Amino acid sequence: MIRVPSLILDEARCRANIRAMAEKSRALRLKLRPHFKTHQSLDIGRWFADEGVECITVSSVGMAKYFAPAWNDITIAFPVNLREIEDINSLAEVISINLLVESTETINFLNSNLSHHVNVFIKINLGNNRAGLKPDNHEYISKLANDIHKSEKMNFLGFLGHAGQTYGCRSATEIRNTHRIARTQLVELKEKYKDSYPNIQASYGDTPSSSVCDDFEGIDEIRPGNFVFYDLMQSQIGSCTPGQIAVALACPVVAIHPEDNEIILYGGGIHLSKDRLTTVKGDVFGQAVKCGTNGLGSIIDDCYLISLSQEHGVLRASPEFIRTCKVGDLVHILPVHSCMTANLMKSYRTTNGKTISMFTPY
Amino acid sequence: MIRVPSLILDEARCRANIRAMAEKSRALRLKLRPHFKTHQSLDIGRWFADEGVECITVSSVGMAKYFAPAWNDITIAFPVNLREIEDINSLAEVISINLLVESTETINFLNSNLSHHVNVFIKINLGNNRAGLKPDNHEYISKLANDIHKSEKMNFLGFLGHAGQTYGCRSATEIRNTHRIARTQLVELKEKYKDSYPNIQASYGDTPSSSVCDDFEGIDEIRPGNFVFYDLMQSQIGSCTPGQIAVALACPVVAIHPEDNEIILYGGGIHLSKDRLTTVKGDVFGQAVKCGTNGLGSIIDDCYLISLSQEHGVLRASPEFIRTCKVGDLVHILPVHSCMTANLMKSYRTTNGKTISMFTPY
Repeated sequence: MIRVPSLILDEARCRANIRAMAEKSRALRLKLRPHFKTHQSLDIGRWFADEGVECITVSSVGMAKYFAPAWNDITIAFPVNLREIEDINSLAEVISINLLVESTETINFLNSNLSHHVNVFIKINLGNNRAGLKPDNHEYISKLANDIHKSEKMNFLGFLGHAGQTYGCRSATEIRNTHRIARTQLVELKEKYKDSYPNIQASYGDTPSSSVCDDFEGIDEIRPGNFVFYDLMQSQIGSCTPGQIAVALACPVVAIHPEDNEIILYGGGIHLSKDRLTTVKGDVFGQAVKCGTNGLGSIIDDCYLISLSQEHGVLRASPEFIRTCKVGDLVHILPVHSCMTANLMKSYRTTNGKTISMFTPY
Repeated sequence: MIRVPSLILDEARCRANIRAMAEKSRALRLKLRPHFKTHQSLDIGRWFADEGVECITVSSVGMAKYFAPAWNDITIAFPVNLREIEDINSLAEVISINLLVESTETINFLNSNLSHHVNVFIKINLGNNRAGLKPDNHEYISKLANDIHKSEKMNFLGFLGHAGQTYGCRSATEIRNTHRIARTQLVELKEKYKDSYPNIQASYGDTPSSSVCDDFEGIDEIRPGNFVFYDLMQSQIGSCTPGQIAVALACPVVAIHPEDNEIILYGGGIHLSKDRLTTVKGDVFGQAVKCGTNGLGSIIDDCYLISLSQEHGVLRASPEFIRTCKVGDLVHILPVHSCMTANLMKSYRTTNGKTISMFTPY
């Protein structure tokens, strides 16, 4: 029996999401290097292997260590944290590790401290304005490429970018327009350096563009992550339909306030995270959905979380739904941001009752 | 050495926060029943015992189980989750457990399923509009009080409220005004039922009102939690000064972009949570602070987090600070919401190098 808030996984929806992305990648002759920071699970990783996936992306050295027994080609898609050089060396001793750099300081440090060979991407800022060098910073990019190329410990893999600004889009058309600009920047950079470094690659691909776009000319691999589950945010962006969302938080009903059209759920910010959608109804922190042993069902109209505290969720609910509810029932909530929810919950329970474990850094 | 984002605890600041609240409670003849959901640590719990604290509050049955070996009087300040009745019974067998109810359904369930005696508060909504009955709902409150009183398995403790709307305040004056209304509602309710139930108590007290206010006439106990660490949100509310904030996230610098006045930190939403402050500078997700082996220091001017993703934090930083920074350094970040940050980090490291463990539900 489910006693406390539990993250429910619809295996069929999840496998369908994986299969669709694997088939699309094959059709477009793109290597699929999915980002495993969303699910963080060796078990779910096997569902990717079932679809022919051979290499992966993670967001931390700790996560790479967790996946290393099962995957021998891992990109750590985060600027190298010099303080983890020992673990990076341990990993590089046993599997193929791909690192991201964006400064001579980091390259010099790696040259001095690597004890095993690694592959290196130069991280490019494609407009997301987080990590990376601006693509027109040619002088510095040339210097880094040359420094890496000269190194006996590093192999220059090419350029890696993440067009995370697609998360600001609100339709497939907007995603396509944003993608076109970002992809062009990355591909032009690769073309510019192809004569000097014939084998370099362009690594690209957030979930919105990987889900919606078809034009990846010049791109070698894509690294979407969130698509494994999708979520309300991806649905708002236009990457998926609510029917593709593969996880929901099962929340016990602990109080019912019909006079306020509200239900108090056991399920708060420590389960769902405080990520929110801005909507015409105000901030939304989750959406109620039907759930049976066969899987997740359709959205329950007019039933959504209007606030979260540490353990409580306040569900605005229709009178019709409230009439069907009693204290002790479970309400299933589609998360706003499945990556953050999964990271908080640290395990899954499939709709048919299997427990699926996850990486825990503690 | 700190390799990855780590939650740094200034023991002296933390003990000073605990001592100040313990002394204030004694002076005002209030029982202090601190909420341990903020720190979730048996080790830090002992610092409360050092100040004479004898009873505590938690937000879940799991947390009560974690603290039960050290504390024999625990209020689970969350509406009873019927699905955890087995664990509630196990707890009630060994320690004094105080539960919150707000419906006849829950009372009937407890009457049928409790195997050991518990104490029960009726949860009152003091304007926070989350859990609880409205204080003017006299007919239903009378019925619940009578049902509990008649029960052989439950002892009616009184009324418990949480004036969480103080979190919307932005000055000590606003906190006092909000507190006066909420306190009056709770005390009037207690007065109304005192003739029928002479020993009932009024349990009250969020961190803003417990930190700022002095008028608690008619209140028997207070349950502040966040004050153990405070945070940027409490500083914005007016509950504390930045110099009282006792935790900071140590974040490795992984990239520096002087041309954008930005530093990329290893430290994201999975470490700090996505809680944010709305300020004139835009959304703020954390504030840089000095830190030495003697403890946390003063705020570093004009250095604050402007965005967080899963693992990255983008620090807007002054040119002066950027000139002092290099890749691999640590930057310490005061969190917006220390409860959520502690819950994510699952352990502390004191500024003088001790490791302090926490409750983990997994």
